[in-house]
Amino acid sequence: MQARVRRFALAHPADTEAFARAVAEGAVDPRRIVAVIGKTHGNGLVNDYTRGHLTLALSLVLAGPLDLDARAVARRVPFIFSGGVEGVLSPHFTVFEALPDGAPPKAGAKRLALASLFTDPPAPEDIGRQAQIDAVAAGVRAAIDKAGIEQAGDVRLVQVKGPCLAAREIAEAAARGRPAASDNPDTLMALSRMAAALGVAKALGEVPAGDCLEAHLGARRDLFSRVASISSGVEVETNEIVVMGNAAGWSGRLAIAQAPMADALDVQAVHTVLDALGLSARPQLGPADRGRLKAVFVKGEPDRSGRLRGRAHTMLNDGDMNAQRHIRAALGALLAGVTGETELFVSGGAEHQGPDGGGLVAAIAEMPA
Amino acid sequence: MQARVRRFALAHPADTEAFARAVAEGAVDPRRIVAVIGKTHGNGLVNDYTRGHLTLALSLVLAGPLDLDARAVARRVPFIFSGGVEGVLSPHFTVFEALPDGAPPKAGAKRLALASLFTDPPAPEDIGRQAQIDAVAAGVRAAIDKAGIEQAGDVRLVQVKGPCLAAREIAEAAARGRPAASDNPDTLMALSRMAAALGVAKALGEVPAGDCLEAHLGARRDLFSRVASISSGVEVETNEIVVMGNAAGWSGRLAIAQAPMADALDVQAVHTVLDALGLSARPQLGPADRGRLKAVFVKGEPDRSGRLRGRAHTMLNDGDMNAQRHIRAALGALLAGVTGETELFVSGGAEHQGPDGGGLVAAIAEMPA
Amino acid sequence: MQARVRRFALAHPADTEAFARAVAEGAVDPRRIVAVIGKTHGNGLVNDYTRGHLTLALSLVLAGPLDLDARAVARRVPFIFSGGVEGVLSPHFTVFEALPDGAPPKAGAKRLALASLFTDPPAPEDIGRQAQIDAVAAGVRAAIDKAGIEQAGDVRLVQVKGPCLAAREIAEAAARGRPAASDNPDTLMALSRMAAALGVAKALGEVPAGDCLEAHLGARRDLFSRVASISSGVEVETNEIVVMGNAAGWSGRLAIAQAPMADALDVQAVHTVLDALGLSARPQLGPADRGRLKAVFVKGEPDRSGRLRGRAHTMLNDGDMNAQRHIRAALGALLAGVTGETELFVSGGAEHQGPDGGGLVAAIAEMPA
Amino acid sequence: MQARVRRFALAHPADTEAFARAVAEGAVDPRRIVAVIGKTHGNGLVNDYTRGHLTLALSLVLAGPLDLDARAVARRVPFIFSGGVEGVLSPHFTVFEALPDGAPPKAGAKRLALASLFTDPPAPEDIGRQAQIDAVAAGVRAAIDKAGIEQAGDVRLVQVKGPCLAAREIAEAAARGRPAASDNPDTLMALSRMAAALGVAKALGEVPAGDCLEAHLGARRDLFSRVASISSGVEVETNEIVVMGNAAGWSGRLAIAQAPMADALDVQAVHTVLDALGLSARPQLGPADRGRLKAVFVKGEPDRSGRLRGRAHTMLNDGDMNAQRHIRAALGALLAGVTGETELFVSGGAEHQGPDGGGLVAAIAEMPA
Repeated sequence: MQARVRRFALAHPADTEAFARAVAEGAVDPRRIVAVIGKTHGNGLVNDYTRGHLTLALSLVLAGPLDLDARAVARRVPFIFSGGVEGVLSPHFTVFEALPDGAPPKAGAKRLALASLFTDPPAPEDIGRQAQIDAVAAGVRAAIDKAGIEQAGDVRLVQVKGPCLAAREIAEAAARGRPAASDNPDTLMALSRMAAALGVAKALGEVPAGDCLEAHLGARRDLFSRVASISSGVEVETNEIVVMGNAAGWSGRLAIAQAPMADALDVQAVHTVLDALGLSARPQLGPADRGRLKAVFVKGEPDRSGRLRGRAHTMLNDGDMNAQRHIRAALGALLAGVTGETELFVSGGAEHQGPDGGGLVAAIAEMPA
Repeated sequence: MQARVRRFALAHPADTEAFARAVAEGAVDPRRIVAVIGKTHGNGLVNDYTRGHLTLALSLVLAGPLDLDARAVARRVPFIFSGGVEGVLSPHFTVFEALPDGAPPKAGAKRLALASLFTDPPAPEDIGRQAQIDAVAAGVRAAIDKAGIEQAGDVRLVQVKGPCLAAREIAEAAARGRPAASDNPDTLMALSRMAAALGVAKALGEVPAGDCLEAHLGARRDLFSRVASISSGVEVETNEIVVMGNAAGWSGRLAIAQAPMADALDVQAVHTVLDALGLSARPQLGPADRGRLKAVFVKGEPDRSGRLRGRAHTMLNDGDMNAQRHIRAALGALLAGVTGETELFVSGGAEHQGPDGGGLVAAIAEMPA
Repeated sequence: MQARVRRFALAHPADTEAFARAVAEGAVDPRRIVAVIGKTHGNGLVNDYTRGHLTLALSLVLAGPLDLDARAVARRVPFIFSGGVEGVLSPHFTVFEALPDGAPPKAGAKRLALASLFTDPPAPEDIGRQAQIDAVAAGVRAAIDKAGIEQAGDVRLVQVKGPCLAAREIAEAAARGRPAASDNPDTLMALSRMAAALGVAKALGEVPAGDCLEAHLGARRDLFSRVASISSGVEVETNEIVVMGNAAGWSGRLAIAQAPMADALDVQAVHTVLDALGLSARPQLGPADRGRLKAVFVKGEPDRSGRLRGRAHTMLNDGDMNAQRHIRAALGALLAGVTGETELFVSGGAEHQGPDGGGLVAAIAEMPA
Repeated sequence: MQARVRRFALAHPADTEAFARAVAEGAVDPRRIVAVIGKTHGNGLVNDYTRGHLTLALSLVLAGPLDLDARAVARRVPFIFSGGVEGVLSPHFTVFEALPDGAPPKAGAKRLALASLFTDPPAPEDIGRQAQIDAVAAGVRAAIDKAGIEQAGDVRLVQVKGPCLAAREIAEAAARGRPAASDNPDTLMALSRMAAALGVAKALGEVPAGDCLEAHLGARRDLFSRVASISSGVEVETNEIVVMGNAAGWSGRLAIAQAPMADALDVQAVHTVLDALGLSARPQLGPADRGRLKAVFVKGEPDRSGRLRGRAHTMLNDGDMNAQRHIRAALGALLAGVTGETELFVSGGAEHQGPDGGGLVAAIAEMPA
């Protein structure tokens, strides 16, 4: 197998024109799509409907080629969209495909390997609880197998989109006598991320086995996965899991690297990832290197202490602009400064995903032949 | 003369505790303050009252030592505050003093020179018009003289805080039959910045002489000053001007450097400024260099084309989060990534201040003895 | 002919479940739909994509029954959506149909008459200019004829959705050498509303004939239509016009009434409209009367003087929450207080639609048999 | 004793000009001020500094006359400010004084009685916990005695401003090993309101005695006070309590009435209160009645079910505009529609203050002689 990764700019949340053309021309093969991951125009919060809007628009494009109705498409292809392109970021989506073998890499080189799956839809009351942790853990293990990644240490990124509930669905769950894990939509959205993150960590042995992890959600921030990148949104009904790593069984020229970010100013982590891929930013990637860079993923969050390297930040006290919008704008610019690229998957809400107050950065690049 | 530059963190918009202690202990000399420049907690827009709040709090601290009432303090000391510490930025203010001569620099070295003044208060209808351009131009020329900067080419930063009007004052001006330059408070706030910027450019000969510049406000973006950094706000009633440059007549160890930024990702400009001050960011300033960095000023704005290096950005279409908040968050993180410092004066609204879609970066550092 | 008016709640911006069922069961006849008018979940500003999202979802439902593809549906049926359901307002849409004759009303009674049409798509540079005024005026005249409303004085509401441009399209227009009427997306959105409003006023003879009205857009607020209700949005490409009034040639039990609102507190105007329809709010409509109320339309805007009945308001100075969101929340609650109903079409941006600082209120109710 | 109540408009958050003049002219007697209650320009959330700004400005005016320094003024006079004047609301503050006896009311009439006090400053970890409930309960009992209100049933309004913490102070409390009741500033702000509300309810016997109420904060919404109106903010360090009712021992012409609001559309409750004061709104108060209306207090909140009278509202899912801003805009307009007045104290966050999903309305008016 070999992976193919292709980015499409979004002029608006339902902009599928270039994608439809690529499908029509055979440049994208609908049956080989492993996942579509993107950043849409919305605020990235509970009332961000641009994620669902793009899901609907892409489903309509793929319905014919896949011979499914639009709703069934979204149950087959993981559409993992995160809203919020603050500051210099640019709305886009990236299509990940698994194709038949290509040119074999030089001996011993591992190449980008990937696979995706959906867990069973959780009951509303299971979101943000142990049941979600366990479902994600089992799903991640299965996806690693499916991708043919033989060593857990070769997993570089586990992207999960988890479900959450709007206020009305939370009230309905309470009325049924099986209340959701929180009665606040924002909090539940965070709990869904946290549960999925610890699910990834459990699958990869990054946290102690046998623990009841639910009790640690949001509390034991020293428990985390180094490779989890989690979003949640009302537009999905189950956990959508995509695993990426490097594996000997894959061919082509793509590879993935990743590093934890210690805090929101950890520029060194970005350089570490770029260096691992043979990309040189002195101080910024030039056009050739930028052309080789196929995808960048960043997760981060405002340090909960209200301080960053000893200085106060104001992100968590701001009633006008959600902290997620602050941190995405900041991390997006930090990454864009180094890479010269603004089509970056930058996402907030990094609880249990990398060190507390930090997060992770990962990138996929084309390696020299 | 020698300049002294000292930063104070702001735990809240009226946090003058450390400053009051510094005054009491003689570490700041109220009679020698040339300007106080800072970033406060607010949104940096028309309804940002944190700028006035800090002005009131600082005026109360200085009233006794200066033997003035609080209102008179604010007419003597330029308090130039810009709201908006989005993302990783940290609220703070910097006190600039002009002290008697210190150790002479090595032969031929020029050192940080500065001076400030207030123009006469403009009539409401003069804001954002030729009258403001001319008043600022005359003020800048006088301040350059006052600072003893002999060559216009040695001016590195002209910081101006211009007046603007809230909706009610705009309506009152219209009712008097002398309408303001715009009936929209946000637009007038921008016109005040633009007029002050072209005033600086006129004083420094950066735009053709003899022109009626008012007609070009906001239109001829190819007309700009390379050293202007302008804010406006309802809390000031006149143009407050601070000129900084390097001059032979000044002693001590501080120097200032500056460069235009071509766009919001122009990391090279930041390195150019740091290099000029002998600071090395590979990729980020280390603690020693960061200790030498005394102040950083950045102006920038979202590219009006809706694109940045060919990619769409969403800053100008966002009805929830003002474009200024987007760009400050982005530029703040870009600068903080390189410097490792978050107490930065980052301000949006860079019309006619540096290249269109870009802006400027300036820094003050302690030079080797 | 007789009009049928039916409301559907929106659980999310693509919630067409109940509508699809109604179509399947024959409770709505797709071929007889004159217009669909609704309030969606977004912010009602330039980056509100929920209007387009609902348009796409409804088009998909109607594509089969109308034997058109989704895009063609939106060119046949006016979908007029306004974002922003602040405060107590509830997202919903209302389907207006023109059916064959029903029970004749008592002698002399006029009944709800309606018709819709699309103008030709304007060039980008024509939006907010005289060309749009004239196109709307011609369209309104044609729609009045089509509805069979014989006297202009019987027109009660002309709902128009006009086109506007995002930042990028504005920049493209400028690059083509035919710049849009404003380079600011928000301003252009307002100009599109203003031009359509004066177009309505021109068609109905409410403004002096022969005038070049473009020069008065936003300036001569004494020029207005008493029956215009205008929205604009990037999701439409032409002027979509719906005319409603009472006419002798229509049967059934529905009628429409309308009154200008003098300011945002003009509760008397609401009672005037309800009284005209035989509805009694003392102080609030009871369940029976509320059941007879089929649709309510309100347009209004923050008084540009910054004052309302002598007191300052803060809507126009707020950099965090757009003035439109303020006024919709306020007018929505004012109307909901009187009617006890929250599925109301409340829309800001009432320039040239009713008295300056005020707006209009209209309602459709079922009359006694 | 007799109460005096006087309102001052706020042109900006530090606008004390008219107040200072009133003090200078003897129209307000600083030594007789019981409380100052007002609505300021900010967002009413954690980062609303306009409350502290006005507190500072008023303290400076009163410092001379009270012969205290500004900080001591704020420890003597309760300044209870709530930010957020959304929609039609107008920023203002109301000064409540207790003067020597005036003209006795007609036999048997009870007149407005009031008193205020401060509790001891709570430890950070006590905010939003049983300790705060008990401190407020004891304070309310003492203030009722002080006001000479003999029957608990004559208490009409207990206004409390409670303390809360910004993110940094929350982190500091955690670092000291005594964590605050929540690590989220918004949540803690709500817990402070809830604890104060149940403290009022406990003092008035509205909830079962002997209960550990802390466990019910936010959960048992059937437990509430019918007269509590609570705000919290980082600008106060203790619970500031103001009790108002009608009592036989007071003279003058002012009286207070109050009613619970069942939900956000309970217009009948407003009429009940106005009727009790002999004011007639048919449909809106006329100028004479409006002149007699001295103060209006409203507390309310978005129904947590996500529904209002069976219809969905969007307030709790909105990531751009805080739910408090939604509900204040709505309730403010509802009340302004009935009273014709926009200087209203409308405040969100009504947990345990009136029925769940509703709140309370209270008004003070001048009674016929």
